Amino acid sequence: MSTSTDPDDIEEGLSFQPKFDASGLVTCVATDASTGEVLMVAHMNDEALRKTILSGEAWYFSRSRNALWRKGETSGQVQRVVEMRMDCDQDAVWIRVEQTGAACHTGRRSCFYRAVIPGSPGTPASLEFRDDERTFDPAQVYGKDGV
Amino acid sequence: MSTSTDPDDIEEGLSFQPKFDASGLVTCVATDASTGEVLMVAHMNDEALRKTILSGEAWYFSRSRNALWRKGETSGQVQRVVEMRMDCDQDAVWIRVEQTGAACHTGRRSCFYRAVIPGSPGTPASLEFRDDERTFDPAQVYGKDGV
Repeated sequence: MSTSTDPDDIEEGLSFQPKFDASGLVTCVATDASTGEVLMVAHMNDEALRKTILSGEAWYFSRSRNALWRKGETSGQVQRVVEMRMDCDQDAVWIRVEQTGAACHTGRRSCFYRAVIPGSPGTPASLEFRDDERTFDPAQVYGKDGV
Repeated sequence: MSTSTDPDDIEEGLSFQPKFDASGLVTCVATDASTGEVLMVAHMNDEALRKTILSGEAWYFSRSRNALWRKGETSGQVQRVVEMRMDCDQDAVWIRVEQTGAACHTGRRSCFYRAVIPGSPGTPASLEFRDDERTFDPAQVYGKDGV
């Protein structure tokens, strides 16, 4: 990969030069290729990015487990990448995917299953469920610890 | 805001308790409410999140400028929030917005105006323009330095 720091080259060029943060990661947004729904936000390190591009299936890097992770490895809920896009400053990736089953470890199609509802003046915001249906039981798929 | 660290409460509860990272930020994905296109990925600190919820317009925190930032303050390209969603572990926010003009500082509708094209085996990936039309001239909007 090229390592140009010229903003014009990074923003207007055709060379793929991901800008990893201090932890070696870029942010990745996965959306459902057919509905446009945001399924999840996660991170990729250099290896996850390469494996995703080469295999056409989503790989991520788990910050909590400090490990490379093929999406669906445990759950079978893989993501086939239809298209990958890079943002202007090349520190974020958008993948449009065909999602098998559900993206969220809670068993829901998307991780974004709750809406934020503003409170009345002086009271805090709260959450409200949306699209809450589970497509699998996380305890069965990941074991009782849900991992 | 509540400060529970019980995963069940964070993932299954209705209390809004954003999980800020070490820099005090959550990741925010903004999509076009009508097309589902990902417009941009940015960050919000506590204040940006509160102002977005209260005003119904997107506020962000710029890591490069270390400053709170009302989207469209300079460019006029504001984002009206149609819905805000929170993800399972509450460290990422998805806003569906009505975008005035363009989201990207380069003048394009979306920051994700280039696709990643896999290289042949042994050669690096490259980028290819998509939806490249500019809706404004950044030099005119932000000045010649493009800031």
